[in-house]
Amino acid sequence: MPHLWLFYQMQSGLTHIYTGNGKGKTTAALGLCLRALGAGKRVCLVQFLKKGDFSELKALRRFPNCTIRQFGTSEFVDPKNVSIQQRAEAQKGLEFARKAILCDPCDLLILDEILVALQFKLLKLEDILNLVAAKPSRLELVLTGRGAPQELIDAADLVSDIKEVKHPFQKGIKARRGIEF
Amino acid sequence: MPHLWLFYQMQSGLTHIYTGNGKGKTTAALGLCLRALGAGKRVCLVQFLKKGDFSELKALRRFPNCTIRQFGTSEFVDPKNVSIQQRAEAQKGLEFARKAILCDPCDLLILDEILVALQFKLLKLEDILNLVAAKPSRLELVLTGRGAPQELIDAADLVSDIKEVKHPFQKGIKARRGIEF
Repeated sequence: MPHLWLFYQMQSGLTHIYTGNGKGKTTAALGLCLRALGAGKRVCLVQFLKKGDFSELKALRRFPNCTIRQFGTSEFVDPKNVSIQQRAEAQKGLEFARKAILCDPCDLLILDEILVALQFKLLKLEDILNLVAAKPSRLELVLTGRGAPQELIDAADLVSDIKEVKHPFQKGIKARRGIEF
Repeated sequence: MPHLWLFYQMQSGLTHIYTGNGKGKTTAALGLCLRALGAGKRVCLVQFLKKGDFSELKALRRFPNCTIRQFGTSEFVDPKNVSIQQRAEAQKGLEFARKAILCDPCDLLILDEILVALQFKLLKLEDILNLVAAKPSRLELVLTGRGAPQELIDAADLVSDIKEVKHPFQKGIKARRGIEF
């Protein structure tokens, strides 16, 4: 039995969820990218609902082991009025993630803001549950975004709920380059 | 008045706290490092209670704008039996942080696990409050660790409380290189 346990330890990649209304979800996922890249692992960062040359992407591009793909439009997503293009981008992102999981091109796969795409009904819960279920045992899979549903929490191994205790946007301070994006 | 507000926007660095019992505090701080480095900012990462060549440090060393200093010992800190050396290291870390704040060598200063050093009584609350109060307006200051006291929460601008909903250590999975360190 100890051998089996050791085997599990060595092989086992986990499914993480970073959810909640506080700052730190995407940021924690970026920290995981940094740590994995430092350990020589291959990282794939998939961003849903986002399009832009954010500071973090400029830094990640220094690492040849890191693949970055964005599936979003530059316009703001209004959940009550989602454009056809936004919906198509989210579906493309899901398809890309599915291939990344099945074809095994990385050790750490981040699906950033996928939970917001779910909340905005751009993706179906069933499809995301299927992704998690299809995860090969050694892949580390990370989902971020507000409002993780209980079904996904049940399917994950590690779940952190980041609560906003205080946020400067409450004081009218806007997002700043190099800090928030 | 709009000019004053704009001036505030441009100049204002904030004090962040990432606290709570969940995974993601140091990891979020590392994400902030990555983002700031991508924006060409100068980063100083000060780690309390830690000593080791963690994967994240290997990745951060690729960036010439990033300074890393550790103030800890390689042994585990038992809060009921803190060694003289551990106490001395924490004090050196405080002194280093004070100089970094006063002498302005960086744009983002991370004091990683400083709140645990406080909780373990290696540092005094008053000294940390003084650090926060001495922060120059354009510096972004980040404190991490469990158990942030209310006085520090009051002094900070952005506070995220990371709650553990689920953690694999509950299942007996140990920390893994490239993921947890």
